[in-house]
Amino acid sequence: MSRERAQAFVPGHVTGFFSAHQHDDPLRAGSRGAGLTLTDGVHVTVEPAAETTVTLDGRPTEMTAVNHVLSELGVSCTVTATTDLPISAGFGVSGATALGTALGANAVFDLHRSENTLVGLAHAGEVQAGTGLGDVVAQARGGIPIRLEPGAPGFGTLDGIPARGPVEYCTFGSLSTADIITGDTVQLTAAGERALSFLMEEPTLTRLMVASRRFAREADLLTAEVETAIDAVQDAGGQAAMAMLGQTVFALGTGLSDAGYDAHSCRIHPPGATLEE
Amino acid sequence: MSRERAQAFVPGHVTGFFSAHQHDDPLRAGSRGAGLTLTDGVHVTVEPAAETTVTLDGRPTEMTAVNHVLSELGVSCTVTATTDLPISAGFGVSGATALGTALGANAVFDLHRSENTLVGLAHAGEVQAGTGLGDVVAQARGGIPIRLEPGAPGFGTLDGIPARGPVEYCTFGSLSTADIITGDTVQLTAAGERALSFLMEEPTLTRLMVASRRFAREADLLTAEVETAIDAVQDAGGQAAMAMLGQTVFALGTGLSDAGYDAHSCRIHPPGATLEE
Repeated sequence: MSRERAQAFVPGHVTGFFSAHQHDDPLRAGSRGAGLTLTDGVHVTVEPAAETTVTLDGRPTEMTAVNHVLSELGVSCTVTATTDLPISAGFGVSGATALGTALGANAVFDLHRSENTLVGLAHAGEVQAGTGLGDVVAQARGGIPIRLEPGAPGFGTLDGIPARGPVEYCTFGSLSTADIITGDTVQLTAAGERALSFLMEEPTLTRLMVASRRFAREADLLTAEVETAIDAVQDAGGQAAMAMLGQTVFALGTGLSDAGYDAHSCRIHPPGATLEE
Repeated sequence: MSRERAQAFVPGHVTGFFSAHQHDDPLRAGSRGAGLTLTDGVHVTVEPAAETTVTLDGRPTEMTAVNHVLSELGVSCTVTATTDLPISAGFGVSGATALGTALGANAVFDLHRSENTLVGLAHAGEVQAGTGLGDVVAQARGGIPIRLEPGAPGFGTLDGIPARGPVEYCTFGSLSTADIITGDTVQLTAAGERALSFLMEEPTLTRLMVASRRFAREADLLTAEVETAIDAVQDAGGQAAMAMLGQTVFALGTGLSDAGYDAHSCRIHPPGATLEE
């Protein structure tokens, strides 16, 4: 039976390192890499409507990936997204909104798509919009996803680090994902591949943080404020890294507040994206 | 750092239909099929010990799959499993205990294995013990897993039905999984393959229940009490099916209590197996 509305929750996702893999087929394009999914995420409500409109925290917004999902599903609706996460700061808010829209629209219009199909639609939307390469598959999985092979379900493969716990983050401003992932990614991808090999020798949270710091340095993505904060967390005995791609630092435990920063606190989120009841 | 103990929670899993796929490599053996993971599951505590002992709800027990996992990891420990689920009744308690042991031992001995590796160890243990073919990969995933291809991570592939909600179950006795999955499975596997094709045409909860009822009939696995209960739920307007392999009936919503049965109630469990904090 169809419903009047459906709501989904999609965890935020910070990527610590990645390599970019372009492909003509957006389901085969994507990234290798690793990161954390977070209990701070995006709530997406979907209601049938004559024309599609999208709001994020009450403000009308254009999200190409969301429009892609709805056009592929052949429906139009009012998409209402709310989040505690900073926007354009490396938390995968656009991927989360696209994936939440896919789950919500499938439920509200009774479209009978499988989870892999819905994840693929949101992933393809993100890739085509240039707003992300790996957030959607990570957000669909939850936990601490390792993207071993790029792409949507059926093409990409995932593993994970079996751990959980508190996480803190601070944001100092935005970076354009599209500028970086559609630019020259040779150096970045080489650094990302090295980071993945290093992590897979010993897939632990500590190694993920070390690999991520090396990657940010080698790919030349650190900004001054981010570097200062990462160093301060390390000096205070903690583990921090930069979220790809945003001027965001994330730390294990209470790393950022131990270093004197006024940080947001959340936790690693074991489940992936789900409909809300 | 190592810890004194680690605890994991693994959801119960009822399979509605399946096909059996044997292979010399236990990581490639497994089943296709679909089912529900449940908020009722198994809590597993792992503590280092000179000799391995396993208790289930306080009673010493032999679980070949658990011993396989620990011997592959090269450790010995006290494994304490507790569950609200009925034993040998089709809820994947042995698979859950093996998977919880793998997650717990990895954490307590700081063994640096990835989630896929740990899931593979528990899956191989179950296959070699003859106690299950598909529970472990489903329990690692959570939600409503569809096993598209048999085997451990890296070999098998999974999809899922994007839904959640309450579930009820009743158990009338046990069945031996080993007797059935090591016997003549030609008819069963043909019925399981048909059920999977039927489900994938329209991957919804309702279809899963219809496909599961057909499968139980075609594979000639229904017992009298199970058949009576399934019919009673349908007569009361609900959806029920038989858990493979146990004399257990599970129903969506309040299907069993609506039909006058004294049923246990739980919910679909979106996350897969996780360490507990």
